[in-house]
Amino acid sequence: MPVETIAWTGQSVRIIDQTLLPIEVKYLDIGDIETLREAIKSLRVRGAPAIGIAAALGCYLGVRRSAAGDFASFRAELKRVCDYIGSARPTAVNLFWALERIQALADRMSDRPIEQIKHAILNEALDMIEEDHRICRAIGRHGAELLRDGMSILTHCNAGGLATAGYGTALAPVFYAAEQGRRIHVYADETRPLLQGARLTAWECREAGIPVTLISDNMAATVMAQGKVQAVFVGTDRTAANGDVANKIGTLGVAVLAHEFRIPFYVAAPLSSIDMSLESGEQIPIEERNPDEVTHPFGRQIAPDGIEVYNPAFDVTPHRYVTAIITERGIVRPPFTEGLRRVFDEANTRRSL
Amino acid sequence: MPVETIAWTGQSVRIIDQTLLPIEVKYLDIGDIETLREAIKSLRVRGAPAIGIAAALGCYLGVRRSAAGDFASFRAELKRVCDYIGSARPTAVNLFWALERIQALADRMSDRPIEQIKHAILNEALDMIEEDHRICRAIGRHGAELLRDGMSILTHCNAGGLATAGYGTALAPVFYAAEQGRRIHVYADETRPLLQGARLTAWECREAGIPVTLISDNMAATVMAQGKVQAVFVGTDRTAANGDVANKIGTLGVAVLAHEFRIPFYVAAPLSSIDMSLESGEQIPIEERNPDEVTHPFGRQIAPDGIEVYNPAFDVTPHRYVTAIITERGIVRPPFTEGLRRVFDEANTRRSL
Repeated sequence: MPVETIAWTGQSVRIIDQTLLPIEVKYLDIGDIETLREAIKSLRVRGAPAIGIAAALGCYLGVRRSAAGDFASFRAELKRVCDYIGSARPTAVNLFWALERIQALADRMSDRPIEQIKHAILNEALDMIEEDHRICRAIGRHGAELLRDGMSILTHCNAGGLATAGYGTALAPVFYAAEQGRRIHVYADETRPLLQGARLTAWECREAGIPVTLISDNMAATVMAQGKVQAVFVGTDRTAANGDVANKIGTLGVAVLAHEFRIPFYVAAPLSSIDMSLESGEQIPIEERNPDEVTHPFGRQIAPDGIEVYNPAFDVTPHRYVTAIITERGIVRPPFTEGLRRVFDEANTRRSL
Repeated sequence: MPVETIAWTGQSVRIIDQTLLPIEVKYLDIGDIETLREAIKSLRVRGAPAIGIAAALGCYLGVRRSAAGDFASFRAELKRVCDYIGSARPTAVNLFWALERIQALADRMSDRPIEQIKHAILNEALDMIEEDHRICRAIGRHGAELLRDGMSILTHCNAGGLATAGYGTALAPVFYAAEQGRRIHVYADETRPLLQGARLTAWECREAGIPVTLISDNMAATVMAQGKVQAVFVGTDRTAANGDVANKIGTLGVAVLAHEFRIPFYVAAPLSSIDMSLESGEQIPIEERNPDEVTHPFGRQIAPDGIEVYNPAFDVTPHRYVTAIITERGIVRPPFTEGLRRVFDEANTRRSL
């Protein structure tokens, strides 16, 4: 991973401002939840795992100076902080997963001094960073089994190190395989409207020494038809219990094309991004964003004034297009409802041991 | 059609500079073939029918001041002009179709005075403009049979009035149906890298009073999955005898998606864009363009310095994804080899009567 996406400085949350990459490498030290929420909302920090961690650290920022005298009022304050941060973006489940984890921790400590709870919240958030490193590594190790020397893969958006605290989800198998000496070539969809593929994936691969070719999103079909890629790897913002995958807008198109051209379509999904409470992808809320992202990329007008725009930030890929889901606990293949249930059961069993 | 795309002023070729639309409406008067070739190459004038007409007018620009004393030297001069203009862009067959038509005209007049041949070349080019109006109208009339009141269609790139001298190919059925009082809604793919959908189709539809919604290319799958569009209409730069369709990059992806979501995929193709000399689309030369179009849209850098880019300007959609081809002589359905042959035979029979 070329940079540290998110870290705790001891006083504040340090993030790399991803809206400026790759033109400018600028770090922001964030000490309040208003700035943190804005950073999540405007994608200065983005990627499901990374915003989960940002949210957890945000909980600490939000309560660290709390003057609450008893648990009930502290808990109410924490809830307000969580609701506020949680309203930044609706689709990525990691945001809510992290906020719930922090609140559950607080609830378990209801009989402890407030200062001790505050301290535990920070530690929990820092644990998530460490965990994320291990999870990315495990996804990389499992996913690398799908990569042979000399293969080319297509990826969409950025599910690399910049989307996590570790070295990514969808790109982790590529980085892992490269460490093992396998040569893997990445085709990166530019990923309109916010161009995370062009700006982040292309940059991150190059910094890591991975050969990368940038294409416009609408070139993916040709790249597949010409046999230039042998697999697709993407991340996910929320995957339902049946394996339906919400991910950056354009993922559905890539999945359908991969299906048509008989190219395996793999989703790298830490368990924290799998929402077992949702039966299917139809229940995943899809964020719609500002039309300006489409009409004024980087402040340059490319469409007529006031034109109507449809700008969903995510789409849902039905599980029938998904070849396998790569989790930190192994590769899950269809039928996903059973496979994902089994992985969660095993994870819970291990945790309770 | 909101503007005149290409016209003859009496002295020069007047085009609207499409690279500046919709921000600026600027006309260029072009009096020499160097400027004309540059205008074709850099897409100031674009769209298969429009560049055919530009090429024909260019022939006149190239020979109007010829001092050739005999037909052989005039013909050699005309050939040099045609080769020069023809080298501007390789994919759209209309360019070559128009240049061949002008040269065939000259050959038929080999026993006539040079000045008379020059005059005939200009008239032939002006005839093409008139023909193009009739062809667009006929495609509109035939294609409109496929449109019901209240329908929404998706289109890719710009095959509207700006791509022709008339009111377009793929958009002609929409304009025609709207004239008949049917309400048709257009979803316009922005069409990276050069954004002809965002800049030209969105603008042209709005100027014509057609409701239009702009999307990024990678949103087409979601728009289809959500049932927002009931048909796809695109143009073509060159269609082979078997119905394989070369068109703006991204068309293949749209076609595959339409196939998957059971949405009819229609190609509007004047006969001049159908290359009966090619058995299949595999033989169509595909132009690759400058990486800067991808990495520096409108002069703004969006990717790391020197990143490798793949930038094919067109793709080829195999005929199995094409529901029907709309020509000025009616709608052709599969099997296309027979259907297109029949249309050409009828056209030739009529011409020879």
